[in-house]
Amino acid sequence: MKGNMHNAGVNMNSAISPVELAKAYRLVNHGPTVLVSACHDGVEDVMAAAWCCALDFAPPKLTVVLDKATKTRELLENSGYFAIQVPTAAQLELTNQVGSISLRDNPDKLAHCQVELFCTGESDVPLVAGCAAWLLCKLIPESHNQQTYDLFIGEVIGAWADSRVFSEGHWHFEDADPQWRSLHHVAGGHYYAIGDALDAKES
Amino acid sequence: MKGNMHNAGVNMNSAISPVELAKAYRLVNHGPTVLVSACHDGVEDVMAAAWCCALDFAPPKLTVVLDKATKTRELLENSGYFAIQVPTAAQLELTNQVGSISLRDNPDKLAHCQVELFCTGESDVPLVAGCAAWLLCKLIPESHNQQTYDLFIGEVIGAWADSRVFSEGHWHFEDADPQWRSLHHVAGGHYYAIGDALDAKES
Repeated sequence: MKGNMHNAGVNMNSAISPVELAKAYRLVNHGPTVLVSACHDGVEDVMAAAWCCALDFAPPKLTVVLDKATKTRELLENSGYFAIQVPTAAQLELTNQVGSISLRDNPDKLAHCQVELFCTGESDVPLVAGCAAWLLCKLIPESHNQQTYDLFIGEVIGAWADSRVFSEGHWHFEDADPQWRSLHHVAGGHYYAIGDALDAKES
Repeated sequence: MKGNMHNAGVNMNSAISPVELAKAYRLVNHGPTVLVSACHDGVEDVMAAAWCCALDFAPPKLTVVLDKATKTRELLENSGYFAIQVPTAAQLELTNQVGSISLRDNPDKLAHCQVELFCTGESDVPLVAGCAAWLLCKLIPESHNQQTYDLFIGEVIGAWADSRVFSEGHWHFEDADPQWRSLHHVAGGHYYAIGDALDAKES
């Protein structure tokens, strides 16, 4: 099934480049709202999550908070894998919609939200096309955290970024088209884009 | 001791207003780099942390990752309380310095970094003057998370913001002086300020 749906490998878009795992934390270090994707038994879902955070450098880990009502949570609990991706200002409506509509209520959610998926070829976890960066994660099961806090921990086992906005281990928001800027959710449909670069002196 | 050092209550600065706890998550929802402060037995410390994230709405909770080497971690483990605050572009150097210098190596760290502290009067947890927002937290002890992942969970028991940039439950970065923008750390001394407001359509 997935072969038909996702014939695009990462290499189809030559702007997508691997990010070394030691620098994968930088993809989320600035606190963007992310998209979470997962699949199990032929079912795929994507949701938005503002509560995603780096947890460790090496091996890279991250946390993400997933409400019990979400289908994406069920899929990653069953498959043990998920992806975190960094959507862009160009994906504002997509991001807000996948964060507002549930696959449980609308089986056509992904088509309705105009989500295009692809796979890396190394994994069947679906990735969202058009994002600025992708982190493929293996769930580290922590039942107490998951049940008590809806808190999930993943080890990052693969990372990629679009070289038009992230290259050589650094974001280049200041030099890229503003449509590449990451989204930072506040509440409701209200977001901020990431802004100007600021460099501190050596301390 | 603290009475002499911290004679300023929150009310001394009339721009600082309480934030209702139901909306406290909004202070960190957009992923800013934060300052973490704590005190125990007369010792106070402040550090920067990029890995802080909202965890729940009601009661509001958050997570923060604190390396075992930090003095701030020791203080909050011993006292059971800490504060998370949102520094501004005007505090770029302060933020980078308190994140680079350890109180263990430099007992004059806070003076060196030009950190001015105050208290709310309801708690002896020191807060950093000049920030845009403050969240007073009670540690929810989770030994496994703390030891294995350096991951700490706090329940937010008080929240305040500077009304020049946050009022009526919303950030107003777009209308405030750019010096009030939150900081979003990438790596080294490299940060981004939060940027333009983007509003999604109703979905």
